[in-house]
Amino acid sequence: MAAIKKKGLQTLMFAEPPFITSSASLVGPKEGEGPWAKDFDRILDDYLFSEKTWEKAESKMLREAIKLSLGKQKLQPQDAELLLAGDLLNQIISSSYAARELNIPFLGLYGACSTMAESLLVGAMAIDGGFYERVVAATSSHHYTAERQFRSPIEQGVQKVPSSQWTATAAAALVVQKAGTGPRISCATVGRVIDMGQTDGANMGGAMAPSAADTIATHLQDTGRSPDYYDLIVTGDLGAVGMGLAGELFVKAGLVPSPNYSDCGVLLYDGLQGVDSGGSGCGCSGCMLAGPLLRKIKNREINRLLFVATGALMSPTSSFQGESIPGIAHAVAIENM
Amino acid sequence: MAAIKKKGLQTLMFAEPPFITSSASLVGPKEGEGPWAKDFDRILDDYLFSEKTWEKAESKMLREAIKLSLGKQKLQPQDAELLLAGDLLNQIISSSYAARELNIPFLGLYGACSTMAESLLVGAMAIDGGFYERVVAATSSHHYTAERQFRSPIEQGVQKVPSSQWTATAAAALVVQKAGTGPRISCATVGRVIDMGQTDGANMGGAMAPSAADTIATHLQDTGRSPDYYDLIVTGDLGAVGMGLAGELFVKAGLVPSPNYSDCGVLLYDGLQGVDSGGSGCGCSGCMLAGPLLRKIKNREINRLLFVATGALMSPTSSFQGESIPGIAHAVAIENM
Repeated sequence: MAAIKKKGLQTLMFAEPPFITSSASLVGPKEGEGPWAKDFDRILDDYLFSEKTWEKAESKMLREAIKLSLGKQKLQPQDAELLLAGDLLNQIISSSYAARELNIPFLGLYGACSTMAESLLVGAMAIDGGFYERVVAATSSHHYTAERQFRSPIEQGVQKVPSSQWTATAAAALVVQKAGTGPRISCATVGRVIDMGQTDGANMGGAMAPSAADTIATHLQDTGRSPDYYDLIVTGDLGAVGMGLAGELFVKAGLVPSPNYSDCGVLLYDGLQGVDSGGSGCGCSGCMLAGPLLRKIKNREINRLLFVATGALMSPTSSFQGESIPGIAHAVAIENM
Repeated sequence: MAAIKKKGLQTLMFAEPPFITSSASLVGPKEGEGPWAKDFDRILDDYLFSEKTWEKAESKMLREAIKLSLGKQKLQPQDAELLLAGDLLNQIISSSYAARELNIPFLGLYGACSTMAESLLVGAMAIDGGFYERVVAATSSHHYTAERQFRSPIEQGVQKVPSSQWTATAAAALVVQKAGTGPRISCATVGRVIDMGQTDGANMGGAMAPSAADTIATHLQDTGRSPDYYDLIVTGDLGAVGMGLAGELFVKAGLVPSPNYSDCGVLLYDGLQGVDSGGSGCGCSGCMLAGPLLRKIKNREINRLLFVATGALMSPTSSFQGESIPGIAHAVAIENM
């Protein structure tokens, strides 16, 4: 058997860790003005990407990211055996319409902003389980599609609060293969849904922080690794407010606060871009992984990364009905081996 | 290696086919008045299930179906290693809030009404790949949550057309295990997104039929099986109109029209229940499988079933923006072995 997973544990250990052989990212203008511009494959001039609507633009970004990630290996969409993707839009239309154009067998996922980790871990499972040799894991988000779906029309000019986050305009795709060169996915931890009763939709980082802390603590316990094992533990999109809370929860969980912890929502923008608590959206952690983080792994500035994408699983309907905001976090260990 | 999948094929052959050891279904009053009442575990007295909103009722139905499916094996939620679930509501809140209550590690899926097949096949892959011993695959839909999200408030009384379908109020859960007794999942075919340019949201069966035909033809080609191999090939929720179209497409694909083909959307209601073309929604094929179909397999009235759940992957937003309706279908072969 290829797989090793001790009964009752949430962490899957891959016996033949799949390779991340290439990745690609497309980002919006604002993300291109941040500190990582040179690490993204393409920075869009505007938010429409020659489409008539932002939603069509988001789907096109995702499609292009997938094609670009395959193209780096001189592969075409038909060379991919499986596409695993999801996004924030209702009925994940960015992903479904991208899958239609690309004609790759498709499994749609929904994990909100945890999707990059969810698609990667399902992809790694599909490969290490012996079912596939080459899959693509992908996700996207778009500031203007998310704002009008989840919050208010931009034109309304609703004032933000300091815990608000800025949904990133970004698409990311990773090619995961049984064989090849590149960093490998050594193990992954599937998260539980954690809800501490937070109801403030303007503080999603705070709502997701407990799930991040739970998944990281579980991952370390399952694997017997200390936080120091990793050169970087990076959460998805908690932002500054959520990251502070996560730090407190780590201490409560008995984890030594570590200088090797950061958050993609804090990293994506430069601190003076008016994004309040930081970035969010599936594409936030997606493009940080597909761009700067995988570049640093390739350059061996980072050799062991624990990528913990986080998702807030509410909807406007659940919020209107008085429900609190549940969070989930999945962890994927990516290592130079 | 446990898995066998020839390069380039869309069909996964499971070397040690996982067992469906138990299943459970809860349905609404209307579904309980249909021909399969005795096969469902619980028929609700009303659509609220002692909750304050239909959305909360749907999530509770799903949660109860999962608990009931485990309870039939004298298992508790904590005995399940993984929950694979999705539903039609924006951000799959029925599934996410059920996962929160049950506290089972969770992977959210979105495949619209194909979700019962998607969750089953990912579950079978997770088990046959050697990662898990016991997972739960589940889905739900609710007539009144779907109508107000996708169409118009019920109170508005919008007139239906003959190709309209009735979203089933139903939740279904299947326990899939590495070991045990029951029918087994021998193989599964992951579908592609197929779109023939249909834009009529009141004829979703027609929009999904091409994907059903494509997946069935691919499945038969990949496995070298003839349609006669199966005692029943059942699509998800094409309804009468979509089923007629699928029949034509089978002939075009060179498949002999077979008396062993039917559709869950046609089967769920009795033909005089005022559902126009038939049933739809994730719960339609879900409860037909979890209830009557698995009972017939258990009784050996059916020994080989090809379960082909179908999904329409549009959203109200994509329709407003002039997009056509893409469909997907995943096939799962369930056999007494």
